[in-house]
Amino acid sequence: MDRFPAGKRAAIMRRMVTPPPRAKFAGDERLGSLLVEVASAHSLAEAKALCAAIAATPAGADGAAERWLPLIAPQAPPALAVQLAALIAELAERYRASILDRGAAPARLQTLRAELARRGLTGFVVPRADEHQGEYVPPGAQRLCWLTGFSGSAGVAVVLARRAAIFVDGRYALQVGNQVDTNLFEPLHITDTPPSVWLAEVLGAGDTLGYDPWLHTERDVERLRGACEQAGGALLGCSDNPVDAIWQDQPPPPLAAVVPHEIRFTGKSATDKRERLAAALTKEHVDAAVVVAPDSIAWLLNVRGADVANTPLPLAFAILHRSSEVDLFVDSRKLLPATRQHLGNGVRVLAPSLLEETLRGLARQGKTVLIDAAAAPAHLFEALNEAGGKIVRRADPCVAPKAQKNSVELDGIRAAHVRDGAALTRFLAWLDGVAAEGAVDELTAATKLAELRAANTHFQGLSFDTISGAGPNGAIVHYHVTPETNRRLEPNSLYLVDSGGQYLDGTTDVTRTVAVGTPTAEHRDRFTRVLKGHIAIATCSFPRKTSGSQLDTLARLFLWQAGIDYDHGTGHGVGSFLCVHEGPQRISKLPNRVALEPGMVVSNEPGFYKSGAYGIRIENLVAVIETDTPEGGDKPMLGFETLTKAPIDRALVEPALMTADEIAWFDSYHAKVRETLTPLLDAESAAWLAMVTRPLVS
Amino acid sequence: MDRFPAGKRAAIMRRMVTPPPRAKFAGDERLGSLLVEVASAHSLAEAKALCAAIAATPAGADGAAERWLPLIAPQAPPALAVQLAALIAELAERYRASILDRGAAPARLQTLRAELARRGLTGFVVPRADEHQGEYVPPGAQRLCWLTGFSGSAGVAVVLARRAAIFVDGRYALQVGNQVDTNLFEPLHITDTPPSVWLAEVLGAGDTLGYDPWLHTERDVERLRGACEQAGGALLGCSDNPVDAIWQDQPPPPLAAVVPHEIRFTGKSATDKRERLAAALTKEHVDAAVVVAPDSIAWLLNVRGADVANTPLPLAFAILHRSSEVDLFVDSRKLLPATRQHLGNGVRVLAPSLLEETLRGLARQGKTVLIDAAAAPAHLFEALNEAGGKIVRRADPCVAPKAQKNSVELDGIRAAHVRDGAALTRFLAWLDGVAAEGAVDELTAATKLAELRAANTHFQGLSFDTISGAGPNGAIVHYHVTPETNRRLEPNSLYLVDSGGQYLDGTTDVTRTVAVGTPTAEHRDRFTRVLKGHIAIATCSFPRKTSGSQLDTLARLFLWQAGIDYDHGTGHGVGSFLCVHEGPQRISKLPNRVALEPGMVVSNEPGFYKSGAYGIRIENLVAVIETDTPEGGDKPMLGFETLTKAPIDRALVEPALMTADEIAWFDSYHAKVRETLTPLLDAESAAWLAMVTRPLVS
Repeated sequence: MDRFPAGKRAAIMRRMVTPPPRAKFAGDERLGSLLVEVASAHSLAEAKALCAAIAATPAGADGAAERWLPLIAPQAPPALAVQLAALIAELAERYRASILDRGAAPARLQTLRAELARRGLTGFVVPRADEHQGEYVPPGAQRLCWLTGFSGSAGVAVVLARRAAIFVDGRYALQVGNQVDTNLFEPLHITDTPPSVWLAEVLGAGDTLGYDPWLHTERDVERLRGACEQAGGALLGCSDNPVDAIWQDQPPPPLAAVVPHEIRFTGKSATDKRERLAAALTKEHVDAAVVVAPDSIAWLLNVRGADVANTPLPLAFAILHRSSEVDLFVDSRKLLPATRQHLGNGVRVLAPSLLEETLRGLARQGKTVLIDAAAAPAHLFEALNEAGGKIVRRADPCVAPKAQKNSVELDGIRAAHVRDGAALTRFLAWLDGVAAEGAVDELTAATKLAELRAANTHFQGLSFDTISGAGPNGAIVHYHVTPETNRRLEPNSLYLVDSGGQYLDGTTDVTRTVAVGTPTAEHRDRFTRVLKGHIAIATCSFPRKTSGSQLDTLARLFLWQAGIDYDHGTGHGVGSFLCVHEGPQRISKLPNRVALEPGMVVSNEPGFYKSGAYGIRIENLVAVIETDTPEGGDKPMLGFETLTKAPIDRALVEPALMTADEIAWFDSYHAKVRETLTPLLDAESAAWLAMVTRPLVS
Repeated sequence: MDRFPAGKRAAIMRRMVTPPPRAKFAGDERLGSLLVEVASAHSLAEAKALCAAIAATPAGADGAAERWLPLIAPQAPPALAVQLAALIAELAERYRASILDRGAAPARLQTLRAELARRGLTGFVVPRADEHQGEYVPPGAQRLCWLTGFSGSAGVAVVLARRAAIFVDGRYALQVGNQVDTNLFEPLHITDTPPSVWLAEVLGAGDTLGYDPWLHTERDVERLRGACEQAGGALLGCSDNPVDAIWQDQPPPPLAAVVPHEIRFTGKSATDKRERLAAALTKEHVDAAVVVAPDSIAWLLNVRGADVANTPLPLAFAILHRSSEVDLFVDSRKLLPATRQHLGNGVRVLAPSLLEETLRGLARQGKTVLIDAAAAPAHLFEALNEAGGKIVRRADPCVAPKAQKNSVELDGIRAAHVRDGAALTRFLAWLDGVAAEGAVDELTAATKLAELRAANTHFQGLSFDTISGAGPNGAIVHYHVTPETNRRLEPNSLYLVDSGGQYLDGTTDVTRTVAVGTPTAEHRDRFTRVLKGHIAIATCSFPRKTSGSQLDTLARLFLWQAGIDYDHGTGHGVGSFLCVHEGPQRISKLPNRVALEPGMVVSNEPGFYKSGAYGIRIENLVAVIETDTPEGGDKPMLGFETLTKAPIDRALVEPALMTADEIAWFDSYHAKVRETLTPLLDAESAAWLAMVTRPLVS
């Protein structure tokens, strides 16, 4: 799927990586004396602050001590390590409980209203966003969830003196009702009634609406301002966030080690990247480019982090100067000596709090600063404007080269997909053997799959929370299995599993839908229409300069012919051991002007969902490649290479609905899957694969 | 085609409507005494000013006296009418000659530079635009052509002290080289090197670039300002246009009668429209909406004008108040008594020069004003901002309801298409008889077609300059036949004719490509691929909320499969006796978020062009209609009803490339064409139609 709920990691992942129950934290005195014993460089207060920040990372929350221990006490004796682990676990649990404490919502809302009144504000906007506009946000930025109880990956609340509303998209219509007290927050559909429309109606003359200028883009602010002015009110930026002011146990920013990412995976040195981008800035008369996207920074400097779930991101800001030097604004405690050496002299490490002043300094010197209006916080534009800077609004310069994978990255991605496909195939073979007996449920299945993946070389974790949906749960596009919703896979139903891995050499994302027992004629009709759309994308040939938006309809046409459709994008970009949802390209009905370029990786994932009954999605990742122009043609053409290797359930295919060309693609894809994966499989799985990849019509 | 060159009307049209040579203008004294003789209400000076403005209209230029005489002297005796006609013709010819005097370009450029120096400006931007951002601009707004010689329908020049450049799109790459002295103006591709990119490079610190804030949208100005600031320069609005200051014989704004458009064509009264839109404004807390698009004003008030070529537009501005009253800013000399009566008390007529002050007044009163950022001149935003107005940037409220034709309008459009199709069919039958002999050239053909159309009921003129392209001329997408380029239709070639009519009950636009003699296998292959794309659009079924951008690729896919494409949109909206290119919907690879709604009319016109060889385009207009949702489906679906009725050359179709469904559509379309048109045809044409519409495979 193109967007997933974030927040806490799935129960299945926690179960997989959590070590046995740990000791209880024995208190400050004990920790202090242990630190003294090992002659730690850190004071008790420092060590506790480190633990608090580590507790705000996934590794802290999941207890993977080897990931964080080097940041506090590399050579800690077991007694100290155990105490640190216990403290971190305790804090992580406190954060989690605080954010998810839905019973506290009325009191929190009341306290926020009192705080707003104290500040003379009529209202305040609470988006589900951090300073990087990222998909995964750390616990301290989970203000929306803390205030309202809503844990989805997108949404915004507006709190006024007497009213409050929460705006979510169609994916979360159901979830918002389950998680949020709708007497406190009126739930609204963000597309039908966006906050700006609602505000224009409910605000009165003289009302003042506050917002945190670090959490909104310029465009957000413009829309909000327009709405306020339309109502005769005013929009005011808050220099400190009122939610933070009342959130007593708010987690600090996360702290995970930033580590070098080897050139055998990146294919290009960080120096080379910096110099190439700097040359482009010089050519365009730009003095410096602000980089607010952590994945851009990770790509540019060939580093990876672990500050948020599922994605190896170091939360940081950077400024790339036309000299090719980089100012990296990052908590220096994240940088081990090896990383500092890797970064080299061209990268100056500065505290994140210095970003604003550094930008003001550039502006005062009359420098021209490039900044990405779609991603950067409005606050930075205000700072640059106030200091008289010249602003060039353009996508951060890392975005395009990061999206166009080089040959080393593509080879890595291909290799990762073979290992990943073998794990998925072993899972599907196992499932085929046991599912019909009714012995498998969604959690068991997801855990089994995660275990098989975890055994793979270069595996670093799941690239997103596995969507493991049986029967009607498969129809919930962003379904997140929990012990409460867990369903058994039942005979004559469909099971949908959307999952992926983070490997040092690549990121994967694949969806398969399988029949448990015998599928119905309707299952087969719908699955075949989805498959035809999938094949239409996989096989299409298009001239250069074509955007993914132009291809989207090819995936839907066969569904439209039956009067049905799916309510999500057809494909999202995917990073190279980075974000599983990466821009700028997309295959989407939403307008996107970005041309597909050779080396871009994108998902191909049409689907169909019958609410309360079943869900179908077939997802492979594909890479954009150059293809031959047919004789007589005159356009340089592009097409897709399918990267994902895993069988598609032939029991769900109705050959009578397929053209000869479509059947040929299906058989040839299966032949390739069989040929590539068989050497990696045990005999039993290999035999199963041979069976399920035999020609469709024989 | 989706965009056409404007400017002077085609030679063919002039030939068709120009009366026999007129008397020479006998001078002011004679005219003055004739006016006194008939006790005219106009002084000599007034009458001459009227003539000057009439000469700037197409009717004035073409001498259709009955259209303008009522504006000066309704009961003029022949002697006076002849003198007025002579004066108008003389002035029109003077305007034309002045605008097209390419030899004057060096002197004009030099004079402009001197004027800029006098004003302390480094440079000035000269767009091909009027105050309404219209497709057809009156002679007085032809500043780009007057200065550079370039007569295309889109482009912009930038004049600096030492350099000057002209920016045009791909359609005009050839034409700009033929029309413009490229030693004076460097020709640049507007997409590859837009003015903002060029300016950012060539401007220096301290440079000042001027622009006319009436001729640019806010976004234009933002881009220009960004470029200037990037270069360390500044952008300055000019309160009077420097080109106007040096253009000695600049034509005045055009003056054509504004006439009521009957409710039997509009289906809805102007009062009803005003009240409905005003209610929507009230609901959205908007006090007034500025309407800058003349076609919106024509639609809203149920009037039509004749100020520019091919489109019945009255150049005017309007403000719609939430009271439902309208301020109409129009030269009152255009309004005959019957029109004033038609407008009624709810419409206040004001001079165009009062628009700015009226808006400032609203702003000072604290009113919220809706204004269309995509269409309105930047000057109006500046005025509103300066006066402290609250601006709501949104499409002009007429745009959406104007695009969704009501049932009366649709019935009119269907009827117009039957008459128009009969004329085209008679033309095609005639052509089939004579073309193979080599007796026909592009001009003869276009004239013949125009004559057949002109005989139709409700015909008011051509809806655009006919594109009549034989052989290689057919490959020039915006080809405009002139005596110099005129080609004979030769055996074994293709002939492309794209034409349309303005009828009181509807606007038509149709393209047919026919084989002269025997087509080659390549002709048939390419034509069939274009036809398959045309059929894919004609037959597609799509859920509500789908935009035209989402459908565009369906028209291209079969061309892509051969490594070819076409470099224009697939479809544009069409007005109801209004603009042949009407927004907001489009079928285009360029992103467009506007959903296709029932009642919208759009063209379906894929093509293929082989430079230097031939051009193919198949264009029908289609209306968006509701269609049945197939059993088991759950989405309300839409589709298209093909409106155009004319045979498609079956000699160019290769049935082996077609699916059974495509052949069935083709035969059924032809059966419908035959059935509908036969009653309107002479026996010979009817027999021909029967022959060319027989089943494809028999």
